[in-house]
Amino acid sequence: MLRRPVDPIEVNAKKTASTILDEMCLTAFQARALGEIVKIWRKMLAEKHILIWLGLAGAMTPAGMRKIIGFLIERRMVDVLVTTGANIYHDLYEAFGGRHYRKTCGLKDETLKVEGVNRIYDVLVEENKLCKLDAWIEKDFAEKLTDGYPYSSREIIHLLGECVSSSKKNDGGILASAYQAEVPVFAPALPDSSIGFSLMYANRRRGRNIVVNGSKDVEESVRITEDSSITGVVYVGGGVPKNFIQQTAVIASYQTKRDRSHKYAVQVTMDRPFWGGLSGSTLEEGKSWGKISTSAKVATCYMDASIALPLIAHALAEEKVNRKMAPPISLEQP
Amino acid sequence: MLRRPVDPIEVNAKKTASTILDEMCLTAFQARALGEIVKIWRKMLAEKHILIWLGLAGAMTPAGMRKIIGFLIERRMVDVLVTTGANIYHDLYEAFGGRHYRKTCGLKDETLKVEGVNRIYDVLVEENKLCKLDAWIEKDFAEKLTDGYPYSSREIIHLLGECVSSSKKNDGGILASAYQAEVPVFAPALPDSSIGFSLMYANRRRGRNIVVNGSKDVEESVRITEDSSITGVVYVGGGVPKNFIQQTAVIASYQTKRDRSHKYAVQVTMDRPFWGGLSGSTLEEGKSWGKISTSAKVATCYMDASIALPLIAHALAEEKVNRKMAPPISLEQP
Amino acid sequence: MLRRPVDPIEVNAKKTASTILDEMCLTAFQARALGEIVKIWRKMLAEKHILIWLGLAGAMTPAGMRKIIGFLIERRMVDVLVTTGANIYHDLYEAFGGRHYRKTCGLKDETLKVEGVNRIYDVLVEENKLCKLDAWIEKDFAEKLTDGYPYSSREIIHLLGECVSSSKKNDGGILASAYQAEVPVFAPALPDSSIGFSLMYANRRRGRNIVVNGSKDVEESVRITEDSSITGVVYVGGGVPKNFIQQTAVIASYQTKRDRSHKYAVQVTMDRPFWGGLSGSTLEEGKSWGKISTSAKVATCYMDASIALPLIAHALAEEKVNRKMAPPISLEQP
Amino acid sequence: MLRRPVDPIEVNAKKTASTILDEMCLTAFQARALGEIVKIWRKMLAEKHILIWLGLAGAMTPAGMRKIIGFLIERRMVDVLVTTGANIYHDLYEAFGGRHYRKTCGLKDETLKVEGVNRIYDVLVEENKLCKLDAWIEKDFAEKLTDGYPYSSREIIHLLGECVSSSKKNDGGILASAYQAEVPVFAPALPDSSIGFSLMYANRRRGRNIVVNGSKDVEESVRITEDSSITGVVYVGGGVPKNFIQQTAVIASYQTKRDRSHKYAVQVTMDRPFWGGLSGSTLEEGKSWGKISTSAKVATCYMDASIALPLIAHALAEEKVNRKMAPPISLEQP
Repeated sequence: MLRRPVDPIEVNAKKTASTILDEMCLTAFQARALGEIVKIWRKMLAEKHILIWLGLAGAMTPAGMRKIIGFLIERRMVDVLVTTGANIYHDLYEAFGGRHYRKTCGLKDETLKVEGVNRIYDVLVEENKLCKLDAWIEKDFAEKLTDGYPYSSREIIHLLGECVSSSKKNDGGILASAYQAEVPVFAPALPDSSIGFSLMYANRRRGRNIVVNGSKDVEESVRITEDSSITGVVYVGGGVPKNFIQQTAVIASYQTKRDRSHKYAVQVTMDRPFWGGLSGSTLEEGKSWGKISTSAKVATCYMDASIALPLIAHALAEEKVNRKMAPPISLEQP
Repeated sequence: MLRRPVDPIEVNAKKTASTILDEMCLTAFQARALGEIVKIWRKMLAEKHILIWLGLAGAMTPAGMRKIIGFLIERRMVDVLVTTGANIYHDLYEAFGGRHYRKTCGLKDETLKVEGVNRIYDVLVEENKLCKLDAWIEKDFAEKLTDGYPYSSREIIHLLGECVSSSKKNDGGILASAYQAEVPVFAPALPDSSIGFSLMYANRRRGRNIVVNGSKDVEESVRITEDSSITGVVYVGGGVPKNFIQQTAVIASYQTKRDRSHKYAVQVTMDRPFWGGLSGSTLEEGKSWGKISTSAKVATCYMDASIALPLIAHALAEEKVNRKMAPPISLEQP
Repeated sequence: MLRRPVDPIEVNAKKTASTILDEMCLTAFQARALGEIVKIWRKMLAEKHILIWLGLAGAMTPAGMRKIIGFLIERRMVDVLVTTGANIYHDLYEAFGGRHYRKTCGLKDETLKVEGVNRIYDVLVEENKLCKLDAWIEKDFAEKLTDGYPYSSREIIHLLGECVSSSKKNDGGILASAYQAEVPVFAPALPDSSIGFSLMYANRRRGRNIVVNGSKDVEESVRITEDSSITGVVYVGGGVPKNFIQQTAVIASYQTKRDRSHKYAVQVTMDRPFWGGLSGSTLEEGKSWGKISTSAKVATCYMDASIALPLIAHALAEEKVNRKMAPPISLEQP
Repeated sequence: MLRRPVDPIEVNAKKTASTILDEMCLTAFQARALGEIVKIWRKMLAEKHILIWLGLAGAMTPAGMRKIIGFLIERRMVDVLVTTGANIYHDLYEAFGGRHYRKTCGLKDETLKVEGVNRIYDVLVEENKLCKLDAWIEKDFAEKLTDGYPYSSREIIHLLGECVSSSKKNDGGILASAYQAEVPVFAPALPDSSIGFSLMYANRRRGRNIVVNGSKDVEESVRITEDSSITGVVYVGGGVPKNFIQQTAVIASYQTKRDRSHKYAVQVTMDRPFWGGLSGSTLEEGKSWGKISTSAKVATCYMDASIALPLIAHALAEEKVNRKMAPPISLEQP
């Protein structure tokens, strides 16, 4: 019980992220938790036959985190991504040259509205530029889709990735990296995003009949967990992405009559268990449901993802990882 | 600036919730915010031609809040509900006689797993009973659905409400109350819930072809906001329900070339603006997007919904509200 | 394990706070926690020989909570109060007729500064009126104090209570109620408040030598816990008040060679355990130190005190409590 | 308004903390806030005549942060420290060779109590070793103190620093570094800590008359702000340390009839403004009181200090700072 002392961190210049996070493992509170996340993620990467899910909520693309996600995908530090429609939409926007801006002025939201500028906490974006992207989705992109075909969100995102990759070299964002690395990306609530809204417009104003079939997302994702020897999960934020990945384990276990609970699990969140919601629930709670293995290595760090993601990614970047041989995901493309 | 003094609350026995919350309006911090929410909600109820959206995230049904939502629906204090698949699923479970239990023991999640008991923070539920409900959805309920028909979540929930209402009198829960009061209920991420999983099983194991078309949810919900003179919103938690309702205003405005931003907006949340996500974003931020009217009356209270909901509902219960004449929602049933 | 079902709350008009909080005991999440706090506090009040400590941090007086604290003191629902200098100072200000104001305008802090108005979140107060009170403390009140005498904060607060009580009838605030009910009030960090600053001015500008002896606070408070058969604690917020009360148990146990850990403990806080600080630490953690009895009944509710205090106080108000016979506190007055 | 784009962070190996934090300045949410803190602290260090206050709450010493504070003191990146008695006490404990341990076992607090092990979140410490330190303070250290002399906490901490420094070389902790760098350290609530408790024992059990005069702390600290050309503040957590430093500006302004508000202000906290307390209050709120200059450069980052401190310290470590010429603090030693 008293064999592992806290080692006070000593400051010397020029430490890399990896070194600092390793040292944090020997401290306490959330610093230790952050260090543990890197340690467990490294263990996942050292597993021969593992499939790593990444659940990504929050407005990570507008916050400047899209190339970090791109990096994790390219280096195959994750094998499947589940995220929000918004993260995909804003990634598309930047892939096409759009920019988000840092709010530094004291302008009120009422004034921003008049100026046609939308706000995401301390980030600004021009409404009319978003509208142009919406129009492109409604008309140009929608032409790539077949009426009546029940698309999973993954299929639509794959086609968006194709557009981004054909028009330019991989810019290191989410869509392009995932397309090139053949990493499937799900956005189970895609209809509830500007991509979904634009496709709805296509139906309503252009007589199209585009169907986004949520059942197919579930079916495909469960198949991935079923087909994997073992799985690990990384949750950045909660929401639908976390629930969706958690559930694949429950359903796959039920379906295959074998224990398919996730064997590694780490999460970064600012939510709390106390309100009883899934987003803030502990990984331990997931064990009672068979979502997380009762013997899983787990770590939760309570901190803002905009700080955690760069730190973790840079710490992992120093690894010699070669996971190009990661298990292929057997999903046909649309 | 210095005309409205803080009035210290004086304690006397037998005050009702309504009185206490009124007095909180004259105090400060979150107490005042809670009082303001009731005040604004009352103003909404006094409007002649208003449609009130309720966005409900979190595990409110397992926490014992389903009859409060039922009450708000029955008394037509809300006109449309947007929630999670889980809240609907657990409401269905209780409507069929299932119970959730208060965790009072110190048992670990590993032990709960062995015992076949699932945990939601301090609530327990038997796994095999949930599995029976899953089987009913997969087989019996699915038989009510037509293969290939692109269902909105609202249509599926309507049919579930029908099942609940035919088997017994209105038990005061969400499904039964909404069915009887003809209040539409959306769960835009329905596929990512045990209802969606069971329907996916029906497809996979029983050769069915059930399609849950997310685009239709968006289309229907936008139509509701378009068809309303004015709209007000109540957000309990964030997630997809909040985003979904916020967006109806943006799309409806775009579609009709008129300002359809929400004119009243209140929210109860334990999330924070600081992480930049939609769930914790301020109602003011919504103004920059045209989601919330720049002249809207708004209030946000940072507190757990399990406490806020009973207090607010009891405070509203003392109102003489008769909104049976609330604008009919022009959505055909499946 | 599955014997105690969650009972969904049913809404009917005219429920009192007590009824609602009782019903919350049968729900979940923080609602249950809030109900449990009332239940445990009632148990404390039913104990024959118990001394109840109240630790009160935060800006509760400016928020309009001073008469609630006054009520708890008058009805002897607490026997000793430990709080911040600020809560005492602002209570003194209101006892002398000063008012705090609700901020409803959008004025910026830079403008408030120019206007001579100080802000406490959404509460405003006039700087020059505070300065008058400071001058009264520095000159008039200081004249009641003896140079060189090592005052405990309790003694100073007792003398302030005397001033308030002689000048007018008990206005139901903290100082007056405590003075009349002979409930000791400590503010261990009193020097770090406007009262302390004004006394320091007296020393510096008026050649006084007023000594606020922190050691005496510790000595007196430990004696209280030592002299009590059993003790219970109520923490509203953390900070010095919580630590101070927690420590009396450790020291009294050490001193008397008997277990004097607190036998009941409830807390309301918006802090969290995750950052490792004392303010947000769990009551369970306190057990490892012998601060809280390992067999203690405990409950923690994560919510804003400005909402919790009125609810709890009104729920308790319906009790038939007669604790005038509460153990006398054997502290001599200055 | 739209001139400063968000620059997505690109991952490449071997970046130092300084580079990552600089890049965060071009992102959003709390990452940008963290970057801004470093930027503002660097600006403070570049000022010729500035005095930098550090307010440090929380259990930073047990968490392994004492050498980081030591580093900031040694390199004179702070000129005065205000902290809790606990941070000093645990620093003393480690300076004398004591260790804190990482909790990795699942033992319950009831068991820890039986084993004589105290818990601070995920840190453990042996009770009997703490008791030995208490005994040393009560007897050996107290012998250095003069009965009846009204000590400020700073004077007592200075004497503790002397003990630590004479017995061994500077171990890089808080006490030793501050002693050698002649950086004053205040713990205004010192009596409410194990140091204060032990001194109280000395009075009670050994017939001593040790006086810890809180008024003197205030007097000395105000003098420091008065005597400085300009001041900057760094708050790690809130509590008494933050309030104490904030107030020096108000009092010094009042006393000197000149604006002595702090000209730079940064804070790291996990508290929130919404509850109205001083700990979580915004730096903007401080402007209305004249605590922070209306023209001050400010930044607040909402994150756990155990992560923020190492990152910030390493980012600053790459600076070429030579502040040995920092303004001497004119306080006589006891």
